[in-house]
Amino acid sequence: MGNYDSSKYIAYFNGEWIPYSEVRIDPLDRGFFLGDSVFEVERTFNGKSFKMREHIERLYRSLSFARIDSKIDVQEMIDISEEAIDKNLHLLEEVGDFLIHQFITRGFGRRAAAAVNPTVCVRINPIDFERYPIEKYYSGGHCAITSILSYSNESIDPKVKNYSRMNFNLAELEANDIDEGSYPILKDQFGNITEGIGYNVFIVTDGVLRTPSDKSILQGVSRSMVFDLADQLNIKVLQEDLQPYDVYTADEVFMTSTPFCVLPITVVDNRKIKDGNPGPIANQLLAAWSEVVGLDIVDQVAKFSPK
Amino acid sequence: MGNYDSSKYIAYFNGEWIPYSEVRIDPLDRGFFLGDSVFEVERTFNGKSFKMREHIERLYRSLSFARIDSKIDVQEMIDISEEAIDKNLHLLEEVGDFLIHQFITRGFGRRAAAAVNPTVCVRINPIDFERYPIEKYYSGGHCAITSILSYSNESIDPKVKNYSRMNFNLAELEANDIDEGSYPILKDQFGNITEGIGYNVFIVTDGVLRTPSDKSILQGVSRSMVFDLADQLNIKVLQEDLQPYDVYTADEVFMTSTPFCVLPITVVDNRKIKDGNPGPIANQLLAAWSEVVGLDIVDQVAKFSPK
Amino acid sequence: MGNYDSSKYIAYFNGEWIPYSEVRIDPLDRGFFLGDSVFEVERTFNGKSFKMREHIERLYRSLSFARIDSKIDVQEMIDISEEAIDKNLHLLEEVGDFLIHQFITRGFGRRAAAAVNPTVCVRINPIDFERYPIEKYYSGGHCAITSILSYSNESIDPKVKNYSRMNFNLAELEANDIDEGSYPILKDQFGNITEGIGYNVFIVTDGVLRTPSDKSILQGVSRSMVFDLADQLNIKVLQEDLQPYDVYTADEVFMTSTPFCVLPITVVDNRKIKDGNPGPIANQLLAAWSEVVGLDIVDQVAKFSPK
Amino acid sequence: MGNYDSSKYIAYFNGEWIPYSEVRIDPLDRGFFLGDSVFEVERTFNGKSFKMREHIERLYRSLSFARIDSKIDVQEMIDISEEAIDKNLHLLEEVGDFLIHQFITRGFGRRAAAAVNPTVCVRINPIDFERYPIEKYYSGGHCAITSILSYSNESIDPKVKNYSRMNFNLAELEANDIDEGSYPILKDQFGNITEGIGYNVFIVTDGVLRTPSDKSILQGVSRSMVFDLADQLNIKVLQEDLQPYDVYTADEVFMTSTPFCVLPITVVDNRKIKDGNPGPIANQLLAAWSEVVGLDIVDQVAKFSPK
Amino acid sequence: MGNYDSSKYIAYFNGEWIPYSEVRIDPLDRGFFLGDSVFEVERTFNGKSFKMREHIERLYRSLSFARIDSKIDVQEMIDISEEAIDKNLHLLEEVGDFLIHQFITRGFGRRAAAAVNPTVCVRINPIDFERYPIEKYYSGGHCAITSILSYSNESIDPKVKNYSRMNFNLAELEANDIDEGSYPILKDQFGNITEGIGYNVFIVTDGVLRTPSDKSILQGVSRSMVFDLADQLNIKVLQEDLQPYDVYTADEVFMTSTPFCVLPITVVDNRKIKDGNPGPIANQLLAAWSEVVGLDIVDQVAKFSPK
Amino acid sequence: MGNYDSSKYIAYFNGEWIPYSEVRIDPLDRGFFLGDSVFEVERTFNGKSFKMREHIERLYRSLSFARIDSKIDVQEMIDISEEAIDKNLHLLEEVGDFLIHQFITRGFGRRAAAAVNPTVCVRINPIDFERYPIEKYYSGGHCAITSILSYSNESIDPKVKNYSRMNFNLAELEANDIDEGSYPILKDQFGNITEGIGYNVFIVTDGVLRTPSDKSILQGVSRSMVFDLADQLNIKVLQEDLQPYDVYTADEVFMTSTPFCVLPITVVDNRKIKDGNPGPIANQLLAAWSEVVGLDIVDQVAKFSPK
Repeated sequence: MGNYDSSKYIAYFNGEWIPYSEVRIDPLDRGFFLGDSVFEVERTFNGKSFKMREHIERLYRSLSFARIDSKIDVQEMIDISEEAIDKNLHLLEEVGDFLIHQFITRGFGRRAAAAVNPTVCVRINPIDFERYPIEKYYSGGHCAITSILSYSNESIDPKVKNYSRMNFNLAELEANDIDEGSYPILKDQFGNITEGIGYNVFIVTDGVLRTPSDKSILQGVSRSMVFDLADQLNIKVLQEDLQPYDVYTADEVFMTSTPFCVLPITVVDNRKIKDGNPGPIANQLLAAWSEVVGLDIVDQVAKFSPK
Repeated sequence: MGNYDSSKYIAYFNGEWIPYSEVRIDPLDRGFFLGDSVFEVERTFNGKSFKMREHIERLYRSLSFARIDSKIDVQEMIDISEEAIDKNLHLLEEVGDFLIHQFITRGFGRRAAAAVNPTVCVRINPIDFERYPIEKYYSGGHCAITSILSYSNESIDPKVKNYSRMNFNLAELEANDIDEGSYPILKDQFGNITEGIGYNVFIVTDGVLRTPSDKSILQGVSRSMVFDLADQLNIKVLQEDLQPYDVYTADEVFMTSTPFCVLPITVVDNRKIKDGNPGPIANQLLAAWSEVVGLDIVDQVAKFSPK
Repeated sequence: MGNYDSSKYIAYFNGEWIPYSEVRIDPLDRGFFLGDSVFEVERTFNGKSFKMREHIERLYRSLSFARIDSKIDVQEMIDISEEAIDKNLHLLEEVGDFLIHQFITRGFGRRAAAAVNPTVCVRINPIDFERYPIEKYYSGGHCAITSILSYSNESIDPKVKNYSRMNFNLAELEANDIDEGSYPILKDQFGNITEGIGYNVFIVTDGVLRTPSDKSILQGVSRSMVFDLADQLNIKVLQEDLQPYDVYTADEVFMTSTPFCVLPITVVDNRKIKDGNPGPIANQLLAAWSEVVGLDIVDQVAKFSPK
Repeated sequence: MGNYDSSKYIAYFNGEWIPYSEVRIDPLDRGFFLGDSVFEVERTFNGKSFKMREHIERLYRSLSFARIDSKIDVQEMIDISEEAIDKNLHLLEEVGDFLIHQFITRGFGRRAAAAVNPTVCVRINPIDFERYPIEKYYSGGHCAITSILSYSNESIDPKVKNYSRMNFNLAELEANDIDEGSYPILKDQFGNITEGIGYNVFIVTDGVLRTPSDKSILQGVSRSMVFDLADQLNIKVLQEDLQPYDVYTADEVFMTSTPFCVLPITVVDNRKIKDGNPGPIANQLLAAWSEVVGLDIVDQVAKFSPK
Repeated sequence: MGNYDSSKYIAYFNGEWIPYSEVRIDPLDRGFFLGDSVFEVERTFNGKSFKMREHIERLYRSLSFARIDSKIDVQEMIDISEEAIDKNLHLLEEVGDFLIHQFITRGFGRRAAAAVNPTVCVRINPIDFERYPIEKYYSGGHCAITSILSYSNESIDPKVKNYSRMNFNLAELEANDIDEGSYPILKDQFGNITEGIGYNVFIVTDGVLRTPSDKSILQGVSRSMVFDLADQLNIKVLQEDLQPYDVYTADEVFMTSTPFCVLPITVVDNRKIKDGNPGPIANQLLAAWSEVVGLDIVDQVAKFSPK
Repeated sequence: MGNYDSSKYIAYFNGEWIPYSEVRIDPLDRGFFLGDSVFEVERTFNGKSFKMREHIERLYRSLSFARIDSKIDVQEMIDISEEAIDKNLHLLEEVGDFLIHQFITRGFGRRAAAAVNPTVCVRINPIDFERYPIEKYYSGGHCAITSILSYSNESIDPKVKNYSRMNFNLAELEANDIDEGSYPILKDQFGNITEGIGYNVFIVTDGVLRTPSDKSILQGVSRSMVFDLADQLNIKVLQEDLQPYDVYTADEVFMTSTPFCVLPITVVDNRKIKDGNPGPIANQLLAAWSEVVGLDIVDQVAKFSPK
């Protein structure tokens, strides 16, 4: 999110195009006072949307799970999103690339089953290079595995991307206690690691990529991109239950997410991973990804990171 | 929260007094897009606030747990809340009584530990007699125990009153499937019933009041009021793990909450409780409560329920 | 249920009185091929029923939970049960006392919700003194805590007395492996002991009676009788979570059940309880109970135990 | 089960061949009052038994787990079962095809380890086309995921096919509350879906068949048949933990069971699966299965469904 | 256990009295390579043992649970322990007071059931005032609630005081990450706090003392002393499930243990408890305890704390 | 461990080479009184170390997890271990082959984070052919699945090989109760089998090798050797959740461990596996393993088993 002049960005809001600075949420909207909303985020590379359809289909799976009717179909949502990019494209050069956010609330009314007037918004903002700056690519980020857990899928399945994420806020604070500024990794109630607060986690053991199955995590689109790239690079991928032991003793750890693609992690719970340097596979994946999108991802981060 | 003209109600919003219809949330506020907020609700009886201090102290326990700094202390929050009542008191007569809401978000910023500018709002709205109308007092409401669970306190302790409540929305939809319009009751991951989506649950067995302990529920102020009234009426109260069996086979079931105080429940999961009529203890408690607040609670509901 | 000539005993079966040896279950009855039945057992003292109403009320709680309609109300069931005793009273002297069984199946039909013709049976048989003979009262029985667990109340609450008890059979076999002929004690999935296969468990620690709460056990009528007797004898009773440690290190252990009332246990999991002799409180309870029912319980066992 | 004249069908019962209407269970049989029994069900196609040996081997695994000795070996049980078909073959034409049931109880005696005289029965009845009529094949059945759970395998492993299935009865009633007449799907205590009450569940996601592993389900013979057919049709199959999210958002859902083979499901928990029509893979499987058995499965259902 | 000259202290070791510096453990002793040992610790006040019998009885409960036979009975163990104090009493003045340790291993042999020659040791060492110095009494200690859990009582009941405590070591390291030098508090697998690594935890809420029940903790003798003192001081005590929320929002937090009796805690997980000062009840308990033992506990700590 | 003259064996102990009989542990070493140690065990074949590097790397993963610094690197540890073999090689002939043990404690000091002087020991002892004698290879060992559970990896991950193993001692005693002298198999808290007390468990079903994944077990080096041999022999291996049902109904069961390589199991929980004889795959694996190490494993056991 970071600091940017939101008045310059045009957003879609309930059928209208207005500056994002003018988008405001009614506190009587269930999306605010009941966390009754779902959302999605994509990014551009060189101003072109990436995996838009995959993201929007995931958004509609979230809607379907939550039984929220957006009154807009998948194709319309894609079209609006692309139009949002177009409307703001003149701002691209100064910020590098865009994030596109869609959010949809259930709207208004005391009873979920009788709610009306869902709020639909599509907005653009610059990628937040400040949160994942170039130093992290060079020397690796730090993570902390928190005692705050992912929601059980008996409460709300983490596969549903939604705004009721108080546990993520608590996990972030706890990670900060363990290792200042570190990125949190959560576990499920069975002792397995799950995901971060907007990113998935991978480890490398003996040349094999390992990551939690989608039981208690968001089915990350970047995670799925890594599956494709690994396949291309002939790297075996396993989806399985992983415990902190596996992370501490891995040859390599990295995270994946829409804004930063792949980020090497070199310290977890104050334990150095291997020799404490970013591993080769993370870099291989970043290179392969860069090739697919025709843009050197790390170079771009270097260029736009705050000095 | 029902239909009412929010432009007539004056609210406190970040230091200013404005019509509630003008209160709007910035979607970049963490309270919106991360569910990073806590809140509280009280009511008036005859326009006088009830248990204001207990509620505000609970609010500050929520803030303390979540490490949100509202920049306002307990006494100031009480004063603002009382002032909010005063500023809207001319509207009391037509609506019966007020609810007072406080909500506080962590404010703005990508990292929880570095967030700034918390949003603080205190608002007034009429009690929503439509959701809990007089018929429910006469013939009893219906409940459904859902498969959607309360959050584990390893994710976010339900004792923290906050807006990240997607599981409540799902539970409400599921209850509606089981018995249309019924009120949901959730369970914890151990099979014990917990609470509803804004109300606590009591059962009566052989003259003893039984209710879940506060392990996985909000420590309801109305629940605590029932403890006091029961003590006064020489009714024994047990806080213990209760299972659906206990509810189905109880002599009496009722819910408690700020807006409706005590509401008799006569059907749970399509099973009639005893003979299917509201029980004597719920009515005793309503009478005793009415006496304390100097207002016949049921009469007021009758007067303001939609015809 | 021991060796006895069931042709001499008259039973109520679907409205008729017939020799029990003629009672037969249609294998198309849901009670047989789906375990879709509930039941209850009482005993007589000197031929007089004991706690009949408490038992029958528990039976109707089971029916209500399982949504089985017996087509007979509580009073009728009591009357039939008393009549069954009367009809067989001439057999009392040779066997000491009677057990009375009621069982009710959901009847016939592929779908539970549309089943018809519930099977209702009330029968009499002699107390099975062979299973709990006088030696056990003198030197104490043996128990084994099994790895087979009580059903979770999310599957079927053990408070519902029903015939779907395959786990009880497995527990009995396992107990036999650990200590031949020993009585099994089960645990719940949280590591707490629950109950046996038709009896409740009590321990004594520093003069206090302790027994699992009714979370995962049948609410035993004999257990409740022990509460009453303890109250009378000024012995404190706690219902709480107990672990094997508590049992192994108790001053005294005993079981309670309808046929044998109170049975001292002196060995659990091959560990001797205290000095390995029946404890004073079990004997105190047996004496007090005997007084209430006007019959020396232990003497009767001694008289009717197989030599 | 349904309505059929059981006096016309000859059954094997403890060594004798008698009309099924004369088979009766002694209520002192442990199979009745302790749910102490295991069973198996097969079907014929054109009067020829299907996968008889696989079923009977599973039956003997159940016996071995429960330590019940049937006094009959696998081959004898197969022979008796085939003979049962033969003895009733003259009834085939009017009913389409047969189900064959075997059930075995532990027999008689108070202690499991010392029980004697196991009851062994093999019977024939017509396939119950009423429960899964042709409309379900054309427009799809409805399912509901219940809060009633499968037994933990720490109580009784669901891989053991037995008659202690009170939780199945409760699940069926609950499904009926959620969506009248719908088929229940249960979950395990970890939030994963398991199976129905006599059928397994499959979903299709991006062309891949997915179904729960056999941790907490019966190892369905029809499920295994679908594995074989999928292999033949080059459809990938994954056995993995699935949550309600996966079912709601699948491209296709279907159930498998001995009587109906493959049944398309188009609504789950009142959410339409995809466009609400039976999916192509279910139909492909039905066609491939029909070819293997030399009988058009759907046509047969159509022919024998009640009009 | 701090720096002290162990050659000056005489210890009982397998029947002999030798300088503690000469006590050595054979690495083939099961107590070393299998953690197969139990132990106990008491302290003196003014050189007189405190609650010796309670401790030794707990030791024998541990032995009984673990089925270790020490070849020594309770009275002998008490006598040896008192003798150990006597033999070292000349060292008392310079160190303030003593700790007495007993430990017993199962001895030698590959199979637990056939092990021989248990190792029995009773030793004396000075109280370690360095670990809990006077500053902690004045301004309060810090605690951190760790993600490392207490052992489940299905693995080894924490009521058994034994040396297999790797999880305690890990918890201590994690607490140090969260808040340097803080004392760890563990939780059970259900989200409830349990105990520290050798101390119990109490909180005060509205004048009531609350502490976890003994489900997953050592039954601390100091904890039990606090129960007695509270009774004397008319302070209500509740044993119940407590969550981190209860600790963070308590009016007062303190720990109890043999060496330090009662230690006020003012920060937990970097959250200040109330106003961040030691609470009145901890001090009241320290004063009452001091009176019982005839020694000002805090003064003694002040005198012997390292300057 | 067994009976052997430890004075003849030279061990490495904190930098020195001394007779093992002289190695002694200070009871103030955290390795003793806090179970704060990790260890490793290898064996020789014909006096040559087997998989030394794999074992030592696992040891260093344990150290890294526990944050113990041995002050010695992997290569040095290997060198010392090989030297230990050399120094004792003259004893090889009379005992067949050696076990090599490494153990490392955290050393001394009250606080884990500030501990100093880790104890490092490498020792040699003869393989204990008495515990796994030739009869077990010929007629198969017995196992018992215990109610004592493996530690949750939320307490201490079983992948960390350490000496805090009181639960293993308890499991061994319980197995002995169930079937005298049998080897225990533990389960996790979810009902899946895990491992024994120093060995892994495999089953064979329809020609496929199945074994628990490494979620809650030590990643056995022998287990991994079996994976390699199976690959070579074209036997499929699955790592998956297995329940007692799978073990009881397997075609074949065996255990793997460093001292005995592969040991056939023919009885589990008093249930005969298949026909009660060792299975062909265990023997195939033993033969293949023998070939790799150039020594007939079974012949060696036969030669050195006690007569």
